[in-house]
Amino acid sequence: MKEFNVIEDFFKAKSIQRKDVIIGIGDDGAVTRIPQGQALVTTTDTLLSGVHFLADTPPHAIAQKAIAVNLSDLAAMGAEPAWISLSLSLPTIDTDWLEAFSNGLQESAIYYSVQLIGGDTVQGPLSITITAQGFVPFEQALTRSKAKPGDSVYVTGTLGDAGLGLHIAQKKHVLDDLTHQSFLLNRLNYPTPRLLVGTSLRRIASSCIDISDGLVSDIKHILKASQCGATIHVDKLPMSRALKESVAYSQAIDYSLSAGDDYELLFTVSEEQKGYLETTLANANVHATYIGHLTGNVGKLELRLADKPYEYNAKGYEHF
Amino acid sequence: MKEFNVIEDFFKAKSIQRKDVIIGIGDDGAVTRIPQGQALVTTTDTLLSGVHFLADTPPHAIAQKAIAVNLSDLAAMGAEPAWISLSLSLPTIDTDWLEAFSNGLQESAIYYSVQLIGGDTVQGPLSITITAQGFVPFEQALTRSKAKPGDSVYVTGTLGDAGLGLHIAQKKHVLDDLTHQSFLLNRLNYPTPRLLVGTSLRRIASSCIDISDGLVSDIKHILKASQCGATIHVDKLPMSRALKESVAYSQAIDYSLSAGDDYELLFTVSEEQKGYLETTLANANVHATYIGHLTGNVGKLELRLADKPYEYNAKGYEHF
Repeated sequence: MKEFNVIEDFFKAKSIQRKDVIIGIGDDGAVTRIPQGQALVTTTDTLLSGVHFLADTPPHAIAQKAIAVNLSDLAAMGAEPAWISLSLSLPTIDTDWLEAFSNGLQESAIYYSVQLIGGDTVQGPLSITITAQGFVPFEQALTRSKAKPGDSVYVTGTLGDAGLGLHIAQKKHVLDDLTHQSFLLNRLNYPTPRLLVGTSLRRIASSCIDISDGLVSDIKHILKASQCGATIHVDKLPMSRALKESVAYSQAIDYSLSAGDDYELLFTVSEEQKGYLETTLANANVHATYIGHLTGNVGKLELRLADKPYEYNAKGYEHF
Repeated sequence: MKEFNVIEDFFKAKSIQRKDVIIGIGDDGAVTRIPQGQALVTTTDTLLSGVHFLADTPPHAIAQKAIAVNLSDLAAMGAEPAWISLSLSLPTIDTDWLEAFSNGLQESAIYYSVQLIGGDTVQGPLSITITAQGFVPFEQALTRSKAKPGDSVYVTGTLGDAGLGLHIAQKKHVLDDLTHQSFLLNRLNYPTPRLLVGTSLRRIASSCIDISDGLVSDIKHILKASQCGATIHVDKLPMSRALKESVAYSQAIDYSLSAGDDYELLFTVSEEQKGYLETTLANANVHATYIGHLTGNVGKLELRLADKPYEYNAKGYEHF
């Protein structure tokens, strides 16, 4: 079975048809159309078996996570997703695996209205590289570099769930509560890209990033790019009931500060924009939690609990 | 050393700055601008160590080949390249390797005026995935699907060089002539994407594809997409002096028909457009060789030598 057959046989028929795709799968490249007044946003992420997902993760979940982590990057830019390209490295042609994987990809593609426009297949260790493309109106992309001291810091959803989910999947942590267990494993395997929040924040947030490596690790990118510091109140970190009821409070804080894979958005908002933020979030029916503010203490991240400095040693996920 | 440091430390400073890149490396995604009247062309290719290049290939060559194979796909669409994204899977952080690789990438990026706009690094077996983006005026993309019986078939450059080059690199073939050896190894390691030919053919060719898996294998994509057959005269296949002087004629034909990695363009031209073709190729100072014509015998590839059927059993490169 040849390269083009894998993409054509398992993925082409399942691909949605967007009107802005002139040529999709099946030529040397895809040809697409960008709406007038919009800039193109491009992002690439690779998931490698044993590193970014456990070897026994269901292929359906792997596919959906591969899409989600890329769309999460588009969300963090305030962009609307449009197209994805897929490079798949597979040890063998396992048709059951490919059916389940392509079904997972299809479900996400339909849900987010993204079209698979091309791909490449090679024989090698299991890994999935997706390049996602989307649009954002000119001058409205959310970046890491325009935050200022005094801006408030917010995060969407809850933090730490995927971190505990990973330890459950790895059997390092055992839960009695099966509802909590299933919730936490879903947070690990099926992260939700916060696309609606991202596009809603376009003219409101002064900076934005998605939390893929852990809050402490990722906020530092904003501090570096915007030349700021930050004070974060760890008692304000949003946590799920599943996390809080499954581990001690100090452990829950550790997960929330350092665990990757939550794919929530962290963003900053100036004092002037806070009124718009509340209206916008309410209109979009999404929730974000205030967790602290930026300071002029460049590069310094200060964690506080009950108004005392909070000692913290763990690190975000390191790739090497 | 973390993910973002690899891309930032080894690649960011070496990246050229195009005016159409609003945000490059260092955010959740890149933000770029498409010129008015142009469609976006996107292609993705993965090179895996031991499959697409030998493990002892110099990193400088690996980088340039990874760019070239992607730009070759853009050339086959008639597109002008603009931006690339890089996903790098590395067994370890080897700074010498990364210096050499990023230098190779930089040279090609400068030469082709493409900007590296983002990337991802993971720890795993050595592989390089590049997604290349470029432009083509609306309605002018070259495809595989619009060829017609009677159209003439052309190829650029010479065929089979990279195939023999691979056998030399693998020590399966030994040459006494070091000039020929060096030429053939260069054809393997440093393929030339035929970008100028591709853009010159925009309103002239009825179909186009790049030869990555071998002529016989790749022309079949055109035959399938355009519902045609083809007659190819193997005595017209363009061959380099290095190939002809290094192996027997029948072997040279085999390399030219079946070896991948040449990255020449194969294209078709209708009778009415042949006059334009000659003028255009002369103006662009590029050469292409007539090798046969398309027929109505759908899916059938007929090879002829000295006006007799030519028996041929070898196959193009199979990915699995």
